[in-house]
Amino acid sequence: MQKPSIPKGTRDFGPQQVARRNHIFGVVRRVFEKFGYAPLETPTMENLSVLTGKYGDEGDQLLFKILNSGDFAKDVSADDLAAGSKKILPKVAEKGLRYDLTVPFARYVVMNRGQLTLPFKRYQIQPVWRADRPQRGRYREFVQCDADVVGTTSLLCEAEIVLMIDEVLSTLGLTDFTIKINHRGVLSGIYQALGGEGTESDLFVAIDKLDKIGRDGVTRELLERGFSQGAIDKVFQYLEVGGSFDEKLSTLRTAFGADGVLADATAGPARGLADLEQVQGYLQDFGFENFARLDFDVTLARGLSYYTGCIFEVKVNNVQMGSISGGGRYDNLTGAFGLPGLSGVGFSFGVDRIYDVLEELKLFPEDVAAAPLCLVANFDHEGRATVLPLLKALRDAGLSAELYPEVSKLKKQFEYADKRGIRYLLLAGPDERAAGQVKLRDMRSGTEQMLPLAEAATEVQKLA
Amino acid sequence: MQKPSIPKGTRDFGPQQVARRNHIFGVVRRVFEKFGYAPLETPTMENLSVLTGKYGDEGDQLLFKILNSGDFAKDVSADDLAAGSKKILPKVAEKGLRYDLTVPFARYVVMNRGQLTLPFKRYQIQPVWRADRPQRGRYREFVQCDADVVGTTSLLCEAEIVLMIDEVLSTLGLTDFTIKINHRGVLSGIYQALGGEGTESDLFVAIDKLDKIGRDGVTRELLERGFSQGAIDKVFQYLEVGGSFDEKLSTLRTAFGADGVLADATAGPARGLADLEQVQGYLQDFGFENFARLDFDVTLARGLSYYTGCIFEVKVNNVQMGSISGGGRYDNLTGAFGLPGLSGVGFSFGVDRIYDVLEELKLFPEDVAAAPLCLVANFDHEGRATVLPLLKALRDAGLSAELYPEVSKLKKQFEYADKRGIRYLLLAGPDERAAGQVKLRDMRSGTEQMLPLAEAATEVQKLA
Repeated sequence: MQKPSIPKGTRDFGPQQVARRNHIFGVVRRVFEKFGYAPLETPTMENLSVLTGKYGDEGDQLLFKILNSGDFAKDVSADDLAAGSKKILPKVAEKGLRYDLTVPFARYVVMNRGQLTLPFKRYQIQPVWRADRPQRGRYREFVQCDADVVGTTSLLCEAEIVLMIDEVLSTLGLTDFTIKINHRGVLSGIYQALGGEGTESDLFVAIDKLDKIGRDGVTRELLERGFSQGAIDKVFQYLEVGGSFDEKLSTLRTAFGADGVLADATAGPARGLADLEQVQGYLQDFGFENFARLDFDVTLARGLSYYTGCIFEVKVNNVQMGSISGGGRYDNLTGAFGLPGLSGVGFSFGVDRIYDVLEELKLFPEDVAAAPLCLVANFDHEGRATVLPLLKALRDAGLSAELYPEVSKLKKQFEYADKRGIRYLLLAGPDERAAGQVKLRDMRSGTEQMLPLAEAATEVQKLA
Repeated sequence: MQKPSIPKGTRDFGPQQVARRNHIFGVVRRVFEKFGYAPLETPTMENLSVLTGKYGDEGDQLLFKILNSGDFAKDVSADDLAAGSKKILPKVAEKGLRYDLTVPFARYVVMNRGQLTLPFKRYQIQPVWRADRPQRGRYREFVQCDADVVGTTSLLCEAEIVLMIDEVLSTLGLTDFTIKINHRGVLSGIYQALGGEGTESDLFVAIDKLDKIGRDGVTRELLERGFSQGAIDKVFQYLEVGGSFDEKLSTLRTAFGADGVLADATAGPARGLADLEQVQGYLQDFGFENFARLDFDVTLARGLSYYTGCIFEVKVNNVQMGSISGGGRYDNLTGAFGLPGLSGVGFSFGVDRIYDVLEELKLFPEDVAAAPLCLVANFDHEGRATVLPLLKALRDAGLSAELYPEVSKLKKQFEYADKRGIRYLLLAGPDERAAGQVKLRDMRSGTEQMLPLAEAATEVQKLA
């Protein structure tokens, strides 16, 4: 018989991993809810008509498609077969697995536009699937935690995203991280300042790679894309603007002014700088104390996404790990489904990366464990009239507890408690029962004490 | 543009539905954990080699298959196409969606047998997918909540299943339900008592339909399957045994003795009756108080499943709804993956049905809602230095709260609070601010009170 296996890029999560992942989800969920976001869940499968074309050609390739049920090949002709998979696909598959949480959210908003109260604030914590090549930290099934609000342009939402990121990560025990913020208008301003060389998207894509390929790599790429060396020098003058948040705002305002791109005060770089300043103002009014973690990073570009306003990304310092959170404002998320003009802003936590970071930094609390607190030892069948009520009393006190299910050697029961990481072992053998007592052993410290049987549950509750 | 839609048999869950479903999951999870079960999660996709052949021919049809990535049709020949979908399937799909939680659990146990501490108690709360024809109460994506323990034959586990079912349903507010229990050995005994007519599985399948097709229907089916009228009469003598739990045990023991099927005291009907008696004994030792809910139902058969010992099913009385929970003991769950002889027992809650029952009986608590507790009204931009710290104070007090994101008419903000079901509206307009106060409006009662601004968060916390 073949040894069973799981598909590559997928994982089983054993008890401790689930408990630790739930710890992260719990913190994220509580913060989202404290900020007024309401939960939404969408189906695992979406129609391919909803998914296709939303993630670029590469994304379409990475969609997992579901084979139609029944006689799926009945409409495939010999000509289709000769033409190849691309021709066959629409005839054999009409559904696919969710690729992210953003497109299903947009689809939900459009389908329910009549009933929704705007602004609509939703969070969503669900797995997504991508047929990507698996590698360290990249899986084919992974969970995203998104929060978005649509139907308002208020920059209060951007300020609150900074607060939520800060609170989630702080609550998880992280202290040394950077919340990078930038604005698509600022990036547009840099492009406009070049006076029309190349294309804006080529510029953004190149800037997005600065982290990975460095100044030389970006220069090479921009030269290839038709930017002049003079323009590239100007780009880097902008990207290397330094100083505090305020100093960067001021330096950029002067530079954009000199380059003559602040003419329209409500768009582009002017809007970008004004928005960033207002977000900063909201944070000050909130009494936000961790400005040292907030970095106005002119080089942050967030690739070729649908963002149009503020953009965010979070890096944990001193840990080898990509960004653990990111997001931004978009002006036309639902346009693809026929509902234009609905502005929104959202962000997402990458749980798998956060998990790895917390594990590396040993930040999971000790009490985040999947084992029950108590094991009642099983000495003999005669004891059941004593140990079953004891077990019930422990559970009635809200404690997790179990009886070793079989009468067996105490050594084996000890090992079981030890391997599962059970904290307290309660022993009520014939001697203890005769004395109306139970022996409580702390498996962590190895200390033991005798307790009156009737008070055992209350005593353990005090320790827990 | 086409209006977007979701695949048939799938559902979006809006804020209130998610909150209510999480309420159910939370209760189930807490009870599972209190009884020492540890969480497990397995991938959405399993290899078809793991899934196929485990659910019968019909089950194989109902599996959702995932199209292989890339040029999926490259190995399909014209001959394959002529032979049809069945021939093509293994060449275009090697993965499928999880169909239940039991097979992935067995696969996990076998893959991790070296590391697992036996007995292994796991619970699993995850969606499953079946390409079934959607109808009322039947979906293509639905969540199962399973708890299983493998590696022990102790009947303590069966007794605890009764306790867990009773506690979960009681905690959810249900009072009028029946936990049916039976034993495959008892059913085997009935078959053995017939002296070799027909087949055991035909008998079990027919008995399983008694609820739906009645005595006449079962009689007709058994006659068709080659059972004599005399044998059928004997079957019904057994099925209609009445009285209390003890009386049924006693009547059956006498009848089985008279029919000469108690010879082997460790198997078949003898084991069945002894097991049921011991489960009852454990429950008595636990001080279980709801014996009135426990029904030894000789007609309970649980279809053609892999059960070999005790079987369970739960019906809510006076509500039109199939069983909301079920399970039983199996002696060879992991045999299909090459690990024989591992006994286990498990059961499952059907969350979608429980949801519908709780809704019908109006048993969802009022505070299970997805809306934040507080909305701070947004009067004017000048107020932000007051309302943002107020908002922070509410959240720091652990309350969910939001500021209406835009300055707009109070009427609109009232409507928003009302539609979202927000309980408290906090108003700090120019007058209140000048007086260092905030007006608190209870949206449910319509009452209003003035609070000192600095104490508002503490006061609302007291009300919550």
